[in-house]
Amino acid sequence: MNIIRNTNKSGNYLVTGSWSKKAAAEAKTQGKTDIIWDGKDERYVRKPTDAEIKLTDDAAYCYLCANETIEGIQYQREPNVSVPLIADMSSEIFSRPVDVKKYACLYACAQKNAGPAGVTLVVMRDDFVEMSGDDLASPLSYKQIADKDSMLNTPPTFCIYIMKLITDWLKEQGGLRAMHERNVEKAQLLYDVIDASNGFYTVHGNREYRSFMNVSFRTPSEDLDKKFQEEAKEHKLTNLNGHRSVKGERASIYNAMPREGVVVLRDFMLDFAKKYA
Amino acid sequence: MNIIRNTNKSGNYLVTGSWSKKAAAEAKTQGKTDIIWDGKDERYVRKPTDAEIKLTDDAAYCYLCANETIEGIQYQREPNVSVPLIADMSSEIFSRPVDVKKYACLYACAQKNAGPAGVTLVVMRDDFVEMSGDDLASPLSYKQIADKDSMLNTPPTFCIYIMKLITDWLKEQGGLRAMHERNVEKAQLLYDVIDASNGFYTVHGNREYRSFMNVSFRTPSEDLDKKFQEEAKEHKLTNLNGHRSVKGERASIYNAMPREGVVVLRDFMLDFAKKYA
Repeated sequence: MNIIRNTNKSGNYLVTGSWSKKAAAEAKTQGKTDIIWDGKDERYVRKPTDAEIKLTDDAAYCYLCANETIEGIQYQREPNVSVPLIADMSSEIFSRPVDVKKYACLYACAQKNAGPAGVTLVVMRDDFVEMSGDDLASPLSYKQIADKDSMLNTPPTFCIYIMKLITDWLKEQGGLRAMHERNVEKAQLLYDVIDASNGFYTVHGNREYRSFMNVSFRTPSEDLDKKFQEEAKEHKLTNLNGHRSVKGERASIYNAMPREGVVVLRDFMLDFAKKYA
Repeated sequence: MNIIRNTNKSGNYLVTGSWSKKAAAEAKTQGKTDIIWDGKDERYVRKPTDAEIKLTDDAAYCYLCANETIEGIQYQREPNVSVPLIADMSSEIFSRPVDVKKYACLYACAQKNAGPAGVTLVVMRDDFVEMSGDDLASPLSYKQIADKDSMLNTPPTFCIYIMKLITDWLKEQGGLRAMHERNVEKAQLLYDVIDASNGFYTVHGNREYRSFMNVSFRTPSEDLDKKFQEEAKEHKLTNLNGHRSVKGERASIYNAMPREGVVVLRDFMLDFAKKYA
């Protein structure tokens, strides 16, 4: 809305799962939009390699979704492209260090790792801020928001306050480098069980794109998936069902999930596999 | 954005103060907009009478701001017009009963009477909901939001929860009829002091449009206004300065301000007038 509307430029979209698919659909209502890579035929099991990314000549930016929560796949590093990157980091912000300079814009709604639903963090390069057109209502114009230091209208004060407490907490934890180590280790606890299960558990995404925020996996059958959910609930392990588009199980292990919680799930998975494998 | 964009219809605006002026300016970025009444030359001291409201032939709706916080003027009843009314009720929602049927749309950001900043309450007639164009990004389309029961994307859950607690509290207080009586009485405590001050205090707005949410008044001079602010602060009476466009004093006495707080201000005003009149 702020970049490709009323221009001849195209938003170039890498569609790697449910969220980037939605983003491309929204962009299409606003201006020229090209889906330059689509993982759909492979059921969104991976991110594109640099060689697969073919930008259009009129590309204003290349969009990516850093982590796809439903499919459980994540970029391990930024793609190398010749146009500015724009990234939806909603489901991984504050989970690891980010080289902000590599992005023209990155944004993240708060409700995964950053705070309560109702505020979105946006980091945008000055030259991109300047692109907002005059045809936008002011609260939709990044330029007008930036000109007023994010206080164009009354901001969601409580949500911002909680985000401040969370960033304080992150510093106390040792910062993003420490969070990254902790998150990778938490995820590895689960992936290790899966990999050692002789195919009883299988991961939705390809190994080199596995997410450390959302572990999306399945048992050998939908019946066992159902049993898994039921028995997990008896152990107070809830919200583990996979999205209907991929089915199976999904463990979302954001910053707020302590290692202890992951260990309980890991132990349950070991017992469940022993019982039904 | 949802109603006049991509149509030949006009948004007809009644500009009665700072907020309706801003609303008309935003509408102009979206479609045909006519300011059909403007109180600017009178310095926004009143609302238009029904006879003064001259709709354009292509009017899609007539917009009003129910209460102008800066100028302290408020509609005492809905204008009688032949097109649907749309009202910004941000600064008076929940302060009195509203005949919702008289409006095609009313909306209110929460942070005055309804909850924390970060959520907006919208009440919209079905036929208006249907008007949203397909060129809108989905979170901006009332139609798409309504189709998903306001859960098109993750809503600001905490803000909505607090709004629920506030509406529970309103019921305990006796509902909107009781709140209205209480609010009128609170405001009258201050207006009575002003009216009995022999011109020491003057109200910005005309008598018949006085707001019971925001009492906007002045002392005889800017020097005394400054003194008023300083001495008020010593009595822990804060945030009483008027907006720079009208100067003087402003007492915002929303639902959350108890009668006791208004009485303290009233007593201070009496003492201050006695001292400096």
